[in-house]
Amino acid sequence: MKVAVLGFGTVGVGVYEMLGKANGLEQGPVLVRPGKKDAPFKVTSIEEIVNDPTVGAVAEVMGGVEPAYSYAAAALQAGKHFVTSNKALVAAKGPELDAIAREKGVAFLFSAACGGGVPFLHNLALARESDSIRSLGGILNGTTNYMLDAMQRLHLDYGDVLKDAQRLGYAEADPTADVSGLDALRKIMLACAVAYGVLPTDGLLHEGIESVTAADVAHFQSRGYTCRLIASGGKSDDGVYAYVEPVLLRDGAAECSVLQNFNMARYEGACAGSIVLIGQGAGRWPTASAVLRDLSGILRGEREMFPAALRRGEVDNSAARHSYYVRLPAELAGELPAASAELDGDVCRMITEPMAVSQMHFAAAELRGRGAEVFFAAVRE
Amino acid sequence: MKVAVLGFGTVGVGVYEMLGKANGLEQGPVLVRPGKKDAPFKVTSIEEIVNDPTVGAVAEVMGGVEPAYSYAAAALQAGKHFVTSNKALVAAKGPELDAIAREKGVAFLFSAACGGGVPFLHNLALARESDSIRSLGGILNGTTNYMLDAMQRLHLDYGDVLKDAQRLGYAEADPTADVSGLDALRKIMLACAVAYGVLPTDGLLHEGIESVTAADVAHFQSRGYTCRLIASGGKSDDGVYAYVEPVLLRDGAAECSVLQNFNMARYEGACAGSIVLIGQGAGRWPTASAVLRDLSGILRGEREMFPAALRRGEVDNSAARHSYYVRLPAELAGELPAASAELDGDVCRMITEPMAVSQMHFAAAELRGRGAEVFFAAVRE
Repeated sequence: MKVAVLGFGTVGVGVYEMLGKANGLEQGPVLVRPGKKDAPFKVTSIEEIVNDPTVGAVAEVMGGVEPAYSYAAAALQAGKHFVTSNKALVAAKGPELDAIAREKGVAFLFSAACGGGVPFLHNLALARESDSIRSLGGILNGTTNYMLDAMQRLHLDYGDVLKDAQRLGYAEADPTADVSGLDALRKIMLACAVAYGVLPTDGLLHEGIESVTAADVAHFQSRGYTCRLIASGGKSDDGVYAYVEPVLLRDGAAECSVLQNFNMARYEGACAGSIVLIGQGAGRWPTASAVLRDLSGILRGEREMFPAALRRGEVDNSAARHSYYVRLPAELAGELPAASAELDGDVCRMITEPMAVSQMHFAAAELRGRGAEVFFAAVRE
Repeated sequence: MKVAVLGFGTVGVGVYEMLGKANGLEQGPVLVRPGKKDAPFKVTSIEEIVNDPTVGAVAEVMGGVEPAYSYAAAALQAGKHFVTSNKALVAAKGPELDAIAREKGVAFLFSAACGGGVPFLHNLALARESDSIRSLGGILNGTTNYMLDAMQRLHLDYGDVLKDAQRLGYAEADPTADVSGLDALRKIMLACAVAYGVLPTDGLLHEGIESVTAADVAHFQSRGYTCRLIASGGKSDDGVYAYVEPVLLRDGAAECSVLQNFNMARYEGACAGSIVLIGQGAGRWPTASAVLRDLSGILRGEREMFPAALRRGEVDNSAARHSYYVRLPAELAGELPAASAELDGDVCRMITEPMAVSQMHFAAAELRGRGAEVFFAAVRE
């Protein structure tokens, strides 16, 4: 099967090279921007791909919702299988693309959009057919895991680890999507859609690591905790729950052995029990390998990652409750239900009574609206 | 698709129940022994299943090579998909069954035979199509992991943890296959066959945990090591390497967080990097969930787990070398190349110079032939 590639950046180069060696797959044309055409296999117009009858599948690794969506829709309408690593595209337009793919009887797969090289969505899609998925989530952003790990093991400041991550290519020049938790949130949205047939939209909560300090990390560490940015999802009565927040884990928990920019995805099946998958969450070769696995899956007959009748739905996070570690200005300590608290100069570090996730996220937003510096993380005993 | 089940023991009951709830699958007849027929859905002759045109697939969970092989061959010849959890069957007769399945255009899948609920072989089969699998292995036997974990965390003797494991249903009345490493060896044979198209036969090495003592475990633990029974496999120049032996891992290694009867399978892809999968390796529901995942895979178009042109081949373990921890009678300490050694009464505990795996396994066999009590474990720094 000849595969066209949309985009020839870090991942696109990897996909193109892997296509040259994979069983049953073949390098097709590569779409680049007009000024970037410097080789015969490159084309500059999507029509050259969509109208090429020798192209059986299209792999999109450009990123962004447009023009990726228009290209994807055109490829599927033309009866070509479509595979993507683009989580923004699938989170925004997954239901529309899935509908076209089903109508045309072609594949729409996107393993690489969640977990990079970790084969999470593929396994989730298979497991949900016979097992009831009770919950899912994990460490789904490698950039922030690299940063938290370096802060803890090398005792570095947030600003320094961010610069290191950018220098190593783990963080973008604008790191907002990673460090705010938005990237992990998009991934847990996709996982919920695959597992439950509900693509969550409104009501999502995400807290990142932008406000963590070296002093916070030293504080956790001295008490036997490791901080990780964790995405959590599952089935609630009326729909799904899905949120992202920093979590403090007891040393020895499996998440603590996930170092550097690795990802760890997990699901809990009623029958299978807890299934954990660990691997590189980003980078040229891990992400390209996930795109290639989807393409090999198409050759083996795989067509759908989303279940039939996928719908968009509101998130219901009301049942999720945790105790939180919160660092906030000492004069605001009375605003939260503290179970224990200690003063450290003009800041207070507290452990709260168990609180609804939404209550904690809203309280932090409100305090920040008043100019306060706040960091919080759920405590998992 | 209606699925017949061969065997109605621990796993068979689980498979039958899950079939009642899975998408696109349906409960078919269950084969039991003549004296065990106590319900209308049970049959006592394989012909009733093979000749039933409404049965689309057969799931075998009886164990043992015969009559499982005759039943499997008959089902495949009759054009029915065949799924099994039976590692002894696939290790002994995998190539023959694969050939019949390919000739008839039906599926032959056996995820549940390696890793229980952990989706190892399925992912390996997909990954090898586009990536080069450098090595594979892990903790593939839950019984011995439960025992080693209990010895380390609860400071129990080997005999006591074995009794506990039997009481909990983790170990058989005759635990030899588990504690000798043979069960893990069969699983790494299957993984090598899936990844490399070579089912290793002669030249396999396996050391179990039968000779470990509470004193050994206390010794490792005081030096910051955790012992796990690890299966190792990979590609060598002329074929594959595959062996099973206890390994001492530095505390903090990912294997150390694999507790109780969990399994941890991993592979290293040239592009994907290290992919680790953790879950329950045995038990009714985890194993049944793996059988059901294979059946759902058939509905999605999956047919083969082994690559085409599977062959049997000799193992070449000559390139693998490690330092070993060895405990042996003090008077025999001179028989091995010690890097360091300490006397503890009439036993010697040594760390050897790096040695070929085969040299260590053969030396231990030779010393035991002379009546010596010997325990050894590779040291991974």
